[in-house]
Amino acid sequence: MKCRVCRGPAVIDIRRHNANFCAEHFLRLCRDQVEKAVSRFAMLQRGDRVLVAVSGGKDSLALWDLLTEMGYEVDGLYLGLGIGDYSDSSGTYVRAFAEARGLHLIEVDLRADEGFDVPTAAAATRRVPCSACGLSKRHLFDRAALEGGYDALATGHNLDDEAAVLLGNVVKWQTDYLGRQRPVLPAGDGFPRKIKPLVRLTEREMAAYCVLRGIDYQVEECPMAAGNRHLGHKETLNDMEVRSPGAKHDLYFGFLDRAVDRFGSATDDEDPVALAPCAECGAPTTGDTCAFCRLAGQARAAEPVTLRPRRRSR
Amino acid sequence: MKCRVCRGPAVIDIRRHNANFCAEHFLRLCRDQVEKAVSRFAMLQRGDRVLVAVSGGKDSLALWDLLTEMGYEVDGLYLGLGIGDYSDSSGTYVRAFAEARGLHLIEVDLRADEGFDVPTAAAATRRVPCSACGLSKRHLFDRAALEGGYDALATGHNLDDEAAVLLGNVVKWQTDYLGRQRPVLPAGDGFPRKIKPLVRLTEREMAAYCVLRGIDYQVEECPMAAGNRHLGHKETLNDMEVRSPGAKHDLYFGFLDRAVDRFGSATDDEDPVALAPCAECGAPTTGDTCAFCRLAGQARAAEPVTLRPRRRSR
Repeated sequence: MKCRVCRGPAVIDIRRHNANFCAEHFLRLCRDQVEKAVSRFAMLQRGDRVLVAVSGGKDSLALWDLLTEMGYEVDGLYLGLGIGDYSDSSGTYVRAFAEARGLHLIEVDLRADEGFDVPTAAAATRRVPCSACGLSKRHLFDRAALEGGYDALATGHNLDDEAAVLLGNVVKWQTDYLGRQRPVLPAGDGFPRKIKPLVRLTEREMAAYCVLRGIDYQVEECPMAAGNRHLGHKETLNDMEVRSPGAKHDLYFGFLDRAVDRFGSATDDEDPVALAPCAECGAPTTGDTCAFCRLAGQARAAEPVTLRPRRRSR
Repeated sequence: MKCRVCRGPAVIDIRRHNANFCAEHFLRLCRDQVEKAVSRFAMLQRGDRVLVAVSGGKDSLALWDLLTEMGYEVDGLYLGLGIGDYSDSSGTYVRAFAEARGLHLIEVDLRADEGFDVPTAAAATRRVPCSACGLSKRHLFDRAALEGGYDALATGHNLDDEAAVLLGNVVKWQTDYLGRQRPVLPAGDGFPRKIKPLVRLTEREMAAYCVLRGIDYQVEECPMAAGNRHLGHKETLNDMEVRSPGAKHDLYFGFLDRAVDRFGSATDDEDPVALAPCAECGAPTTGDTCAFCRLAGQARAAEPVTLRPRRRSR
């Protein structure tokens, strides 16, 4: 197995590129793929200040590393979700990464700063944990990016993530979500610009990137996500990819090239929804109180829940 | 396990309906589902003369039975594809069905009437067998329906078939195919009306229908189709259906309700392609000679191929 670029011994094969790479040229490939995504979708301009949402997992730490290497000014944002040992060790990985590289890390702790945590919010609102968590993360990420005056909020969603979300939206033909499933959402209406620079790279590639760059990361999946539908869609796509290498890439980029605009625009200009400031926090919302403040209100009033790993059969 | 309708002993459970049925009420369910599809999509009107394309498999024989029971005047069309023993036994099932019920069967034999067969056509044109076969079937079905003056050509595509084709078109975002993937294509431009009355019923239900109605059918899959991508998509959807009963139905009918019109119209009025009669056979085509006549020309000139079952690894 030889590197496609230098013919030296390869360390990884990438079937959808039909090629093998040595460590040096694999790392270059990763940077090239991020640069390609950034430029193709006009995610960033030289000199932009970026806030990257870091979970302690491979994708977000690799993203922080990659964007920093590419010369952007990148700070990290870590949100303590209060998911037992999983959150404790996630925070440790993030802090160690930032300290070793002298990077600036912003920390928000849901329980200490907002008065609740994800397990309690899920129980109090009877939401699926991933739903309560996602809602909280989106709100607090947006707030931190705006308060810090960052040009963009970057998240570590990779090709596996985006293809799985897309498959989920397609099998139910959720046309409103489909119209907004883009690698960039422009700033506006009280929201920061949101970018996903890893959409051309897979989970497996990000894991290899971290190993080769000596980045220690949280390997475990979130215990509350076990068995969720998103992971089921990932399995489905992994099976498809084995039968037909490149299937995830074709699904996602074919959608962006030929279908997404049929479902709506990134800004929803054609069908504007009236947004007004939330009565409690000032964030843009379609009602009086935003969904985050409603969730937080219910969760703060509830008895804190001790995490029991949720294992649902599928 | 009790019948949802009469509380008598049930013979089949249908998870996506969350219900069980006795033989009598299952057969009624099948008729109701066909009537619902026919009326919802305006497939047929009282008194219509229908030509049903029969392969000898469960779906097409069940469809012939169902439409006849519903009072339509339905003739059968069997196309001998020349796929070795598989074709020989398929024809036997079709003839036995028609004779036992006094129904009129039209037979076309590719080798005897057109001078070639599917294995030879596939080899001569270097097409995948399913592609050469599908092209031949569409052409000869259309011709027979038009020559016989039928109001509609009906095929036995069921929910599994349509959902799998849809998934295949979606993963590659083949927008032209997506715009035309409808349960009815209206007549026009030298094509007969085409209808798929079984889109609300699954493979498993059609097999049960045949067993309960005493219809003998070809159980084997076509040996040339083994390992094709369509069967892979069916497996994918079967896995999804186990995790989430109703997934196939939601995928297909959600597409018809909320997405298909975004990809084109059934008649392609908006982007008309100029069609002219084929120089050889007169069928509508975009070129001088239609794709069928080109395929037939190459296949007739080739040495006949003896069928070897094609087993591809996936």
